[in-house]
Amino acid sequence: MSSSVLVTGGNGLIGNALKKILPDAIYITRKDGDFTDICQVKKIFKKVRPVTVFHLAAKVAGVKTNAEKNAEMLAVNVQINTNVLSMAREFGVQKLVTLLSTCAFRERPENPPSEKDVHVGMPYAGNLGYGSAKRLLDLQIGLLKQQYGCNFTSITPATVFGPFDNWDINDGHVMAALIHKCYLAKRNNEPFHIWGSGAAVRQFIFSYDVAHILFEVLKNYNDSETLIVSPMEGISIRELVEMITQVMDFKGPVIYDQTKPEGAAARLLNNAKFKTLFPNFKFTPLKDALQTTVQWFVENYSNARGIIA
Amino acid sequence: MSSSVLVTGGNGLIGNALKKILPDAIYITRKDGDFTDICQVKKIFKKVRPVTVFHLAAKVAGVKTNAEKNAEMLAVNVQINTNVLSMAREFGVQKLVTLLSTCAFRERPENPPSEKDVHVGMPYAGNLGYGSAKRLLDLQIGLLKQQYGCNFTSITPATVFGPFDNWDINDGHVMAALIHKCYLAKRNNEPFHIWGSGAAVRQFIFSYDVAHILFEVLKNYNDSETLIVSPMEGISIRELVEMITQVMDFKGPVIYDQTKPEGAAARLLNNAKFKTLFPNFKFTPLKDALQTTVQWFVENYSNARGIIA
Repeated sequence: MSSSVLVTGGNGLIGNALKKILPDAIYITRKDGDFTDICQVKKIFKKVRPVTVFHLAAKVAGVKTNAEKNAEMLAVNVQINTNVLSMAREFGVQKLVTLLSTCAFRERPENPPSEKDVHVGMPYAGNLGYGSAKRLLDLQIGLLKQQYGCNFTSITPATVFGPFDNWDINDGHVMAALIHKCYLAKRNNEPFHIWGSGAAVRQFIFSYDVAHILFEVLKNYNDSETLIVSPMEGISIRELVEMITQVMDFKGPVIYDQTKPEGAAARLLNNAKFKTLFPNFKFTPLKDALQTTVQWFVENYSNARGIIA
Repeated sequence: MSSSVLVTGGNGLIGNALKKILPDAIYITRKDGDFTDICQVKKIFKKVRPVTVFHLAAKVAGVKTNAEKNAEMLAVNVQINTNVLSMAREFGVQKLVTLLSTCAFRERPENPPSEKDVHVGMPYAGNLGYGSAKRLLDLQIGLLKQQYGCNFTSITPATVFGPFDNWDINDGHVMAALIHKCYLAKRNNEPFHIWGSGAAVRQFIFSYDVAHILFEVLKNYNDSETLIVSPMEGISIRELVEMITQVMDFKGPVIYDQTKPEGAAARLLNNAKFKTLFPNFKFTPLKDALQTTVQWFVENYSNARGIIA
């Protein structure tokens, strides 16, 4: 693969991880063009003429912004996705791999949902805009295959973490926020405060693993149906916090504030299909991934995203 | 109301009906701009600066095209709607009324669904693209109200018919196709062939009534939730065919070809909310509406849409 690989969202959490595997691909960021404007997207495709596209560009935010700006999260992501898919189809892209999100799945399913359940029920109201844009993306991929035979597909990763994350404590993702809070607690000799009881269970995946899987999917997965990827069945926030304090060598008190919300008891997806299709894929052990992430965070603290120094 | 009323889709079935009520509004058609391109939509809003918008523009087709071009129906309608809504919000439009479709509702519900059921289940596969674009439109309207307080809303009319319809026999809507087939049977002294047994039940609404209701909704309905409008509980294709033959004075044989598909046994929506909110609205009697439509069709036969003379 050479310069005919286009990566949108080249400066994000996963885009940066992909650079380690595909250093020669063309990485496009919002500085290169406004993806909500179809003319600008067309200009990029005309210039690059990609054979392969990793479509990672998205307007992403934390739970707070997602809930407050549902309409904007919906409109912007729908525009970005529709424009990129339309141009990928028009310019004859041979393979496109993009990302869905656990946010696309329904609120509080009785059992961890599988790939068949993307459109069942409604997404959580606080993610309704972002989650619905991801659902639409899934639908578009399926219909583009049906009408034009486009070999486009998506993966649905568990909650991603790694270097280049958004570290905003109030509006970042849970892993980045926990690392950041632990860092500040250690630096300031204060207790490490956790929202909720710590009992909530989540699935995480290291951004470098996502990058490897995107590459595997590019080569070996030709179904339009999304592929759920998660290295684990789930981990409680309490177990995660213990691991973070070990990795960060934090020895102060950890306080669980049960007056604060902790979200759904469990937010899990069924990863059986991935395990069947890629039985030999080796995920990075969580602790190793955490170590790499924490090291990056500490080294890049002064200019990482979401840090108000 | 004056020139500050913008109507998109000004040359369609309902756009033309609206001209009888609002002759001074600004009617925009695809000749005035490509609505899939946000820059062109912005240019129109900049020029017109509308206070009120009737957003009727859509890529519409018959069942055949809908099924064959699901991806295109989805992409184009999503682009049109997202661009128009974004600009209406950005330019501070005070009220926007648009159209959903029965296609947005799920396939084969057990009972006629109400407004609460727009997002329950999946639309019929043959309309998945078009129906999903309408669902997204509904979601966008709700979230724009939530985030920005936009007073945007929609109605969901039963199957619309009237002058300026698409009369294509193979890919038009059922009412227009039946009128056209009856016209040809009479002219050519041939039997009037109907697909299926005639038992299928449908709801219809006259385009002039839709125009009146759009105007009523503009003035008197300020909820973002869609409003289902239908003058009737349903009519069988057989009853409809009898009425058409009367109106068109067709005396030849009518043949029901039961080897041909007739679609779902019933495709009905629950119009209770409309009846409660607008108890005094007078719908045009079906036979009168048919007479007006047939007269227009006969007078405009040579240059009506979907006619290959």
